[in-house]
Amino acid sequence: MSNSAITAPTQFLQTNKEKYAYRRFGKKSKYPLLFMQHFTGTLDNWDPAVTDALAANHDIILFDNAGVGGSTGKVPTTMAGMAKHAAAFLGTLGIETCDVLGFSLGGVIAQRMALDNSKVFRKMILVGTAPRGGEDIMHLEKPSLAKFLHDTTLKGYEVLQKIFFPPTDTSQAAGKEFIGRLMQRKQDRDPIAGPEVAQAQMAAFREWEKYSGSRFADLKPIQQPTLVVNGIHDEMIPVANSYWLSENLPNAVLLTYPDAGHGSLFQWHESFTRQAEAFLIADSPYAPY
Amino acid sequence: MSNSAITAPTQFLQTNKEKYAYRRFGKKSKYPLLFMQHFTGTLDNWDPAVTDALAANHDIILFDNAGVGGSTGKVPTTMAGMAKHAAAFLGTLGIETCDVLGFSLGGVIAQRMALDNSKVFRKMILVGTAPRGGEDIMHLEKPSLAKFLHDTTLKGYEVLQKIFFPPTDTSQAAGKEFIGRLMQRKQDRDPIAGPEVAQAQMAAFREWEKYSGSRFADLKPIQQPTLVVNGIHDEMIPVANSYWLSENLPNAVLLTYPDAGHGSLFQWHESFTRQAEAFLIADSPYAPY
Repeated sequence: MSNSAITAPTQFLQTNKEKYAYRRFGKKSKYPLLFMQHFTGTLDNWDPAVTDALAANHDIILFDNAGVGGSTGKVPTTMAGMAKHAAAFLGTLGIETCDVLGFSLGGVIAQRMALDNSKVFRKMILVGTAPRGGEDIMHLEKPSLAKFLHDTTLKGYEVLQKIFFPPTDTSQAAGKEFIGRLMQRKQDRDPIAGPEVAQAQMAAFREWEKYSGSRFADLKPIQQPTLVVNGIHDEMIPVANSYWLSENLPNAVLLTYPDAGHGSLFQWHESFTRQAEAFLIADSPYAPY
Repeated sequence: MSNSAITAPTQFLQTNKEKYAYRRFGKKSKYPLLFMQHFTGTLDNWDPAVTDALAANHDIILFDNAGVGGSTGKVPTTMAGMAKHAAAFLGTLGIETCDVLGFSLGGVIAQRMALDNSKVFRKMILVGTAPRGGEDIMHLEKPSLAKFLHDTTLKGYEVLQKIFFPPTDTSQAAGKEFIGRLMQRKQDRDPIAGPEVAQAQMAAFREWEKYSGSRFADLKPIQQPTLVVNGIHDEMIPVANSYWLSENLPNAVLLTYPDAGHGSLFQWHESFTRQAEAFLIADSPYAPY
C-alpha cells in the first residue's frame, strides 16, 4: 500500500446505493481507521500531516460521502441519511468494525452511525463536532465567519486558513502551513464541492441542532471509548459542544488545544497524532489512555 | 534517594518564616516536581500510585504548607498567604525554578505563585482546581457533599472515597483502592489536620471566589505550559472551573476524565501519570504534547 494521502490513488466502490470515492493507504491493521470529513470537504481536505502520521500503524480510509467529491448521488439533507451511505460503504468493503476519526460534520455522522449500529466502531475520535441539540453549530452567517466567506480577495484554501485558525500570528502561521500541505497532492484530485453540497449539508446541521425529549440523552448508548478534541477558539462549532459531548458520552476523554480553532487537529498535528495514536493503541475498554 | 511516598522519610526545613515538613524522593531531575495538596490534606494524602510513577523520572517534593501536617505556623486565610509560604520553602531549599502539580487548593496556590513570580514554575499541572472568580468552589454545605461529611458511619479515609469519587460502582471501587494505597505508609505519618486548618483554608476559598475587574484576566500573565485536568463529575470543584482555566490561560491543554470526580488523578492514575509524564518531558514552550 501507498502510505501517504499525497500519493494514494482515488478508488471507487460500487454499492447498491452509490459509487463512493475513497483512498486507502497505510499499514494493515486489525481495525481500519475511517476518516469522515467536514462541511464541503473532500478527500483532498485531509491534512497529510495527520493522515500520514497515523498511517504508520493504521489502515487509513478517507471517504467521500454521497454527492461529495468523486462519489455519485445526492447529498442527503439529514445526518441519518449520510450515516446510511457511510454504513453502506463500509458494508460493501467488508468492514464490520473499524475505528473512526470524524471531524466536524464527519463527527456528527459518526455519532449517528454508532447509534444505528453499536458494532460499527471500536473506538471513536470526534474532533470539532457537536451532539444533537448542541448550540451555534456552523452558523456561517455570523459576522466572525461571514467576513471571510464573503472576502473575494481570499483565494482557494485561504478561506480555510481564516475560518479554521484564530487570528493570532501563531495560529495563522499554522494555518498557512496547513493549506500548503493540502496542495502537496498534485494529481488525481477530487472535484470541489459546489453550492448544492453546502446547502444540503447545512440543512442537516440545522436539523441536528433540534432535539426532543431529554437533551443529550441519545449520547448515553454510545459506549465506545471516545476521544473528544477541540480548539478552545473554535468559531464554527464552539468548544461548549465538545464539553457536552464529553460530559454526556459515558466513556469519553476530552482534550482541548490552546490558540486553536476548528482546525486544532491540523494546527497541533504532532500532538494530535501522538494523542490519537496512544488512544487507538490502548488495549482498554475505557477511554482514558 | 528513596523512590516511594510510602517510605520516603519526612524532612523538615527551617526558613525565616516557618519550619516546613516535606518528603523528597525519586530521580534527580533538572526541574523538581513540587506537589501541593488539597483542602486539609497532608503529605500522607498523596497517592503513591501517582507520586511513585512520576518519581521514576522526577525529583518529587511533597510539601506541607504552614500549619498543615508537620509544618509549624498558622494556616493563612488567603491563597496569597499560602503562596508566600510555598515560595519561602522553595527559596530556602535553593530551588529557583521547578515544575508543579497543584491539586485543588494546591492548584490555586500554584496559580498565585506563578503570578507572584513568573520564574518559579517551568510547567504547571493543575488538577481539580479553579481560577479566581470561579464558581461552586468547595461548598461543603451542599447536600451532595454534606451527607457524607456528616455521616458518622464513615471511618477514616472512607469520607474521601465518597466525596472524591462519584457514586458509580466503578468509581467507588477505584476510590476504595485509592484509600487502601493511602494506608500503605505505616510509619512516620503526618498529624491529621484539625478544624482550625479547615476553617482557615475555607476562608481562603471564599476569598478566591471573589473577583474585581475583568473576570479571569489575571490568568493571562501565566504563560507557562499548563496541563489542566478534571473529572467531569467533580462535586467539590466542578469541571466548569477547569473549562475557564483552559480557556483563559494562554498556554493550556485540558484533559477531562469520564466517570470521575475530584479524585480523577487517583482514579485514572495510569493514564494520568502517563499524560503528566508526556507533558513534563516534552521539550516545547507550548502546552500541547
